[in-house]
Amino acid sequence: AKAKPADLSGYTRVKQQLVQPPYAPEHEQVATGGPKIIEVTMDIEEKLMVVDEDTGASIWALTYNGSVPGPLIIAHVGDYVELTLRNPASNAMEHNIDFHASTGALGGGGLTHVFPGEETVLRYKATKPGVFTYHCAPGGAMIPYHVTHGMNGTMMVLPREGLKDKDGNPLPYDKIVYVGEQDYYLPRDENGEFKTYEAAGDDYADSVDAMRSLVPTHSVFNGAAGALTGEGAIKARVGETVLMVHNQANRDTRPHLIGGHGDYVWETGSFGDAPQTGLETWFIRGGSSGAAMYTFRQPGVYAYVNHNLIEAALLGATGHFVVEGEWDNGLMEQVAAPRPIAS
Amino acid sequence: AKAKPADLSGYTRVKQQLVQPPYAPEHEQVATGGPKIIEVTMDIEEKLMVVDEDTGASIWALTYNGSVPGPLIIAHVGDYVELTLRNPASNAMEHNIDFHASTGALGGGGLTHVFPGEETVLRYKATKPGVFTYHCAPGGAMIPYHVTHGMNGTMMVLPREGLKDKDGNPLPYDKIVYVGEQDYYLPRDENGEFKTYEAAGDDYADSVDAMRSLVPTHSVFNGAAGALTGEGAIKARVGETVLMVHNQANRDTRPHLIGGHGDYVWETGSFGDAPQTGLETWFIRGGSSGAAMYTFRQPGVYAYVNHNLIEAALLGATGHFVVEGEWDNGLMEQVAAPRPIAS
Amino acid sequence: AKAKPADLSGYTRVKQQLVQPPYAPEHEQVATGGPKIIEVTMDIEEKLMVVDEDTGASIWALTYNGSVPGPLIIAHVGDYVELTLRNPASNAMEHNIDFHASTGALGGGGLTHVFPGEETVLRYKATKPGVFTYHCAPGGAMIPYHVTHGMNGTMMVLPREGLKDKDGNPLPYDKIVYVGEQDYYLPRDENGEFKTYEAAGDDYADSVDAMRSLVPTHSVFNGAAGALTGEGAIKARVGETVLMVHNQANRDTRPHLIGGHGDYVWETGSFGDAPQTGLETWFIRGGSSGAAMYTFRQPGVYAYVNHNLIEAALLGATGHFVVEGEWDNGLMEQVAAPRPIAS
Ligand SMILES: [Cu+2]
Ligand SMILES: [Cu+2]
Ligand SMILES: [Cu+2]
Ligand SMILES: [Cu+2]
Ligand SMILES: [Cu+2]
Ligand SMILES: [Cu+2]
Ligand SMILES: [Mg+2]
Ligand SMILES: [Mg+2]
Ligand SMILES: [Mg+2]
Ligand SMILES: [Mg+2]
Ligand SMILES: [Mg+2]
Ligand SMILES: [Mg+2]
Ligand SMILES: [Mg+2]
Ligand SMILES: [Mg+2]
Ligand SMILES: [Mg+2]
Repeated sequence: AKAKPADLSGYTRVKQQLVQPPYAPEHEQVATGGPKIIEVTMDIEEKLMVVDEDTGASIWALTYNGSVPGPLIIAHVGDYVELTLRNPASNAMEHNIDFHASTGALGGGGLTHVFPGEETVLRYKATKPGVFTYHCAPGGAMIPYHVTHGMNGTMMVLPREGLKDKDGNPLPYDKIVYVGEQDYYLPRDENGEFKTYEAAGDDYADSVDAMRSLVPTHSVFNGAAGALTGEGAIKARVGETVLMVHNQANRDTRPHLIGGHGDYVWETGSFGDAPQTGLETWFIRGGSSGAAMYTFRQPGVYAYVNHNLIEAALLGATGHFVVEGEWDNGLMEQVAAPRPIAS
Repeated sequence: AKAKPADLSGYTRVKQQLVQPPYAPEHEQVATGGPKIIEVTMDIEEKLMVVDEDTGASIWALTYNGSVPGPLIIAHVGDYVELTLRNPASNAMEHNIDFHASTGALGGGGLTHVFPGEETVLRYKATKPGVFTYHCAPGGAMIPYHVTHGMNGTMMVLPREGLKDKDGNPLPYDKIVYVGEQDYYLPRDENGEFKTYEAAGDDYADSVDAMRSLVPTHSVFNGAAGALTGEGAIKARVGETVLMVHNQANRDTRPHLIGGHGDYVWETGSFGDAPQTGLETWFIRGGSSGAAMYTFRQPGVYAYVNHNLIEAALLGATGHFVVEGEWDNGLMEQVAAPRPIAS
Repeated sequence: AKAKPADLSGYTRVKQQLVQPPYAPEHEQVATGGPKIIEVTMDIEEKLMVVDEDTGASIWALTYNGSVPGPLIIAHVGDYVELTLRNPASNAMEHNIDFHASTGALGGGGLTHVFPGEETVLRYKATKPGVFTYHCAPGGAMIPYHVTHGMNGTMMVLPREGLKDKDGNPLPYDKIVYVGEQDYYLPRDENGEFKTYEAAGDDYADSVDAMRSLVPTHSVFNGAAGALTGEGAIKARVGETVLMVHNQANRDTRPHLIGGHGDYVWETGSFGDAPQTGLETWFIRGGSSGAAMYTFRQPGVYAYVNHNLIEAALLGATGHFVVEGEWDNGLMEQVAAPRPIAS
């Protein structure tokens, strides 16, 4: 018995233009009109990326649309997402996609295996509100291999009425900052130097050995150490409310905003549960996305880190917010600048 | 002053027949009648187990009733559990039991040390609702040694009125699937091969060294890689509601159901707190049991994994659900099967 | 434009005398009177400490007030904390302080860099209720270096009306036990022996290498293995309610009270969210403080552990409560002491 076709009457088709992280595609926070079929397209790109300029460490990254993490996709509960996934003939490997936001067929992974030169189209209904990881999952050891080579991102499913606090008050945000934390397990040669490879997939056997240690050589935000510092730092203003979406497809992490807080935090990423409030540090379970909302109250630089400080300082898990506005001595004041100790 | 004997008037005695994981003993979800004294018996068995057929890696497992994890025990709040614990003379080692569900005497560990040839009887009141780890804890380094040799399991204490959502609506389940995730730290020889030993306990010194790395060689469900796949896969039907109980007595883990969700999740295992809803991945703190409830909506194979995908794919933390029923294109549809890219 | 001075009218100045962990300074649970400016002083002390008497492993610890963790500081929401931080000329290194409880300037880290011989004064308003980590953060790899050399502690910000359960009922405690869990990454020589150093800072390069493994050599409570056992064990009585504050500034941990529970637990440390109840084990995200409240119901020894039992037994993460009172057979009874198995 063949399954009945889906009844798509009453749905409006819209195209969502995906953008590079840390940005979010244009979207409504509170849904207007009826449910939609949101059409998105992702091209798989295998590319050589430098992950740490200091050491020159590099990886043949496996990416959705050329970025690590893949682009943020946004829908509302009740919408359909219709993805065209293309694996250009120039690629070397088979890929697919597993959406944690979806239901059935290994999250779509079972219906989307594309070899180089192939494309496929998958449609699923967003039934659960929240931020959810998506990632490649070709099978067996290829699953962690692809995921730890960058092939993962976040699908955000907003409640139709937008985000709310525990009492039902609306929690609008001014902008989204989308961070993907990537653990890399880069093989080293006998001298301890990071190895280089000719083509995507050539590091497979070495990578399997490196992964088995469970200790990453790098844990970086948005593909490479320093991607969100310096030129890549996020700009914000005092009074601005930022929703920080954090994806970690494989390994636990604990974001912290140095000098700020999580005013409202959906640690597990479920927007169906009331947010936690006033957190210093929040925990993203490996294989999930979570979100934290903060309204900046002071100008200056804020470091956004994985608060295993070794991972932040030595493995790369640090980004920066540069915030403009007026300093509030009522919140913090340097009463006495460093000076000789009074005896 | 000797402590007063417990007043057991008003309690009915019943025997609970324990069964092998992943199954649950016969039980009521909503308690009928008054409080009970639930009599259970566990025999300690030291046995050589293959933990990975591919490599032949083996361990002299230390077990309650011969299984890893030990059997699931079920009571309701207010009931007593009365355990007879037997350590047959054929065993080599001293053992005991610490119930996280209990109060006092190191969870009963201080009252239950049995040498080979001994038995003991412990009775305690189940006062807190939830799923709770139990494990052997003979003292010092023997504690992690016994726990990482399989000697742990789950005690479930249901609210008398059964499980509820945050608004107090009943959350009945059709069946329980009981998963114990076991981290093993198997010693290797100078060639990197897993060592074999003559008898239980012979691997003690090597195991202490291996444990100190904090990196397990295996993290498996129900004793061995593949125990819950193939022949051991769990069967379910569309529409069926399954309560997945997950025990990890030593090390954090993050269960995820590929293609499904946690509709209701008690991450910490406390049934006294409202369940979280709609989770992609949930976190089991090392040294605890947690529970997640899901109603299947699509047929097919679902992988249940620790979503550190390295642990799932390389260390063994993967199980399967095989679900029968009718596919719902309204939830997911393969709009276009893999095909050459349209130019 | 210079920032306006803070309006401090209406605030009363009080001095808080800091004490050594595991003790808490004198404080009100429910605030009386108006908001306060709480003056505290901390002297930075670099000192050689033995962290494990069994092996003689030692570290040139970097400390606030000479203890690991630094002292517990207590305020209420709306109070100011005014810290005088002194770095005596006898020290070798630059230090500062980042308060997770504060807002702006990297948690105060940007305003408090003191070289040996310098002091500084920082004032900030406590706006969020909870227990929050503070730590040294001089920049770059010096951040994890200082934090994993002991330079961290907890700032507690009580709601003005004290702690409450989810229904708003007061949750007073009889005493606070303040535990800092410290991960150390001690360098070893070519024979695997722990290295010793002449002066604070001499182990820097070796420590960076050791930290990069992400696997600590020690994870201890209050500075050294055994600091909270034997002479250092915590004393309590049946019926007494203890608030256990747990700080871990760098690395995840999972406290568990063997033989007891967390009756009320603020895992993330936020007192603005309702406590979880009846937990067997709770999770402290690396880079945070959390709190758990328990009322003892049985006499005897309770071990308080990080329930990665390897870390508890082999790395040092074990403390003891010794509780006096009358045994309650209604909660637990040794029905039959260990005896030969009945045939
Ligand atoms: Cu792929
Ligand atoms: Cu996944
Ligand atoms: Cu045992
Ligand atoms: Cu335990
Ligand atoms: Cu310092
Ligand atoms: Cu910090
Ligand atoms: Mg395949
Ligand atoms: Mg940069
Ligand atoms: Mg999520
Ligand atoms: Mg013993
Ligand atoms: Mg099998
Ligand atoms: Mg539990
Ligand atoms: Mg500096
Ligand atoms: Mg001691
Ligand atoms: Mg906290």
